[in-house]
Amino acid sequence: MILPRLGVTCGDPAGIGPEIILKAFSRPGLLPAAHYILFGSRKLLEKEQRALGIELRLGNTAFTENEEGSLALRDLEEPSGSWGKGEPSAEAGRASFRYFEKAVDEARRGCLAAVITAPISKQSWHMSGLSWRGHTEYLDSLFPGAIMAFWSKRMKLALLSHHLPLREALALIKADILLRFFTHLQECLKKVGQAGLELVVAGLNPHAGEGGILGGEEDEEIRPAVERAQAAGLKISGPLPPDVVFRQALDRPGVMAVALYHDQGLIAFKLVSFETGVNVSLGLPFIRTSPDHGTAFDIAGTGKADPESLCQAIRLARQLSAASLQLRS
Amino acid sequence: MILPRLGVTCGDPAGIGPEIILKAFSRPGLLPAAHYILFGSRKLLEKEQRALGIELRLGNTAFTENEEGSLALRDLEEPSGSWGKGEPSAEAGRASFRYFEKAVDEARRGCLAAVITAPISKQSWHMSGLSWRGHTEYLDSLFPGAIMAFWSKRMKLALLSHHLPLREALALIKADILLRFFTHLQECLKKVGQAGLELVVAGLNPHAGEGGILGGEEDEEIRPAVERAQAAGLKISGPLPPDVVFRQALDRPGVMAVALYHDQGLIAFKLVSFETGVNVSLGLPFIRTSPDHGTAFDIAGTGKADPESLCQAIRLARQLSAASLQLRS
Repeated sequence: MILPRLGVTCGDPAGIGPEIILKAFSRPGLLPAAHYILFGSRKLLEKEQRALGIELRLGNTAFTENEEGSLALRDLEEPSGSWGKGEPSAEAGRASFRYFEKAVDEARRGCLAAVITAPISKQSWHMSGLSWRGHTEYLDSLFPGAIMAFWSKRMKLALLSHHLPLREALALIKADILLRFFTHLQECLKKVGQAGLELVVAGLNPHAGEGGILGGEEDEEIRPAVERAQAAGLKISGPLPPDVVFRQALDRPGVMAVALYHDQGLIAFKLVSFETGVNVSLGLPFIRTSPDHGTAFDIAGTGKADPESLCQAIRLARQLSAASLQLRS
Repeated sequence: MILPRLGVTCGDPAGIGPEIILKAFSRPGLLPAAHYILFGSRKLLEKEQRALGIELRLGNTAFTENEEGSLALRDLEEPSGSWGKGEPSAEAGRASFRYFEKAVDEARRGCLAAVITAPISKQSWHMSGLSWRGHTEYLDSLFPGAIMAFWSKRMKLALLSHHLPLREALALIKADILLRFFTHLQECLKKVGQAGLELVVAGLNPHAGEGGILGGEEDEEIRPAVERAQAAGLKISGPLPPDVVFRQALDRPGVMAVALYHDQGLIAFKLVSFETGVNVSLGLPFIRTSPDHGTAFDIAGTGKADPESLCQAIRLARQLSAASLQLRS
């Protein structure tokens, strides 16, 4: 079996990223076998290790002696100048971007099957003059049409659009755009071994329009797109009332809900999977996952951060990239 | 202590309404002391009792001998003609409307403190030629400006608008409309002894607009309305990101979430309180509650229906109307 190469970026040095990464890799049994490459700064990680009392050899060494796989560090420039744990800064913003940029660059060149990103601070990126709001926008700029999806034990979710004002998001609810989205989503899922997922599509209006009385988008745009997708062989159904569809997708591992705008999906997902979910970008030339929490500046440096969500992001990236490797070989 | 008079309507005769009412009133200890008046048909209820093996004296008799309160039946015309258990029909629609209409009439004349409505079938109402889609629309026609709210052990919720196409609902997100709504909601809550509830208001756009980058409604309409309401003395905060606000309101009995449109609130509420929530109409001259489920035609007549959600609707109506009586006395 070929082990996938997985990149893990350290995120904002002032946040909990370095801590949860060190915990995840130093505690036995948390992570599956793979060739891991950390994107961070040696001095920063060594300092963090001393503070946490963790001893992890960050060379190009075997991950553990008894398991397959390896752990290597891509040692990048440290944040310079003045920055402090637990607060946003231009320096930390620049460093976290460098880690991410380098990992994406290696992944797009085919050297990594997946990139798992620890949280960055949007404020730090903004302070450092970066024009992208966050990971997603940077990836969008390189790979237009990427799909934002979410995975947890209780629910799987894909978003038709993500960081758009609601009114602009509504303008995308057109039959042809929807059909292209469903088809593209299905192709993306197939590439990561998830072709069997059944898509259930949300309606837009109360009670899914109730036969047109409460809105026309269901009959005019959404249902025609779903029916054309069905005719093309996709396992897809809907539109279902928005307050029904996410319950339908709950605790059904074979189902993925399709939300028509950011909060329609994320209100549901974050209620049932708060801080246990994984954010997945589909449609990139590689797999990208991230934990469903932020930099947690309020507890950064206290040693209290829980690596579980990061571990789930890594496990899912491992699972999807293994499927992806098998499909390609 | 003055016991409130509570009306309970039987809902669609073909649905589970009569069954859950008979179970609720015949099983000891499920309901609080009150003067209950059922709005239904004697023959229908007696037939249902025989089928369920329930013996409940439906006169103007004491509720139980050991408890305060009473149970009376307002015997209304039976559904005539052909109708069958478990299916919609014009006859059942007309009957369920009569029960409801009569209860509302007694309540608006001050004879009832609250009306608890068992589920009707919108299809049956439609088949019988009624112009109202359901309970809510009938109440709206009599008492414009009623507020649709939801109550469960885990969440309290009020909706700025309810049965409107999403695009029309968005047009109502204006500072002056919001301020009037917040003020009206606070007054309604005060009347039912809930003045202490803290309101947390949802934003409209992803991340609540993120400073205007992802939409302007938060800065231009919602925040100004919240600030003016605060200045007027309301306990209110927001706008919070839509995927955060409902988690903030979860398991906090002193908090009520305010949703800007139907599904923003109901996606959240139905996920955490499916079939255990209570629908509450505020701003009527009386209290109206209903269980958060439908006629359940698929199990009607099988004896499997669970009265718990109806009991919760009755208990909440009892609690709010007792507070209301105390405030008036």
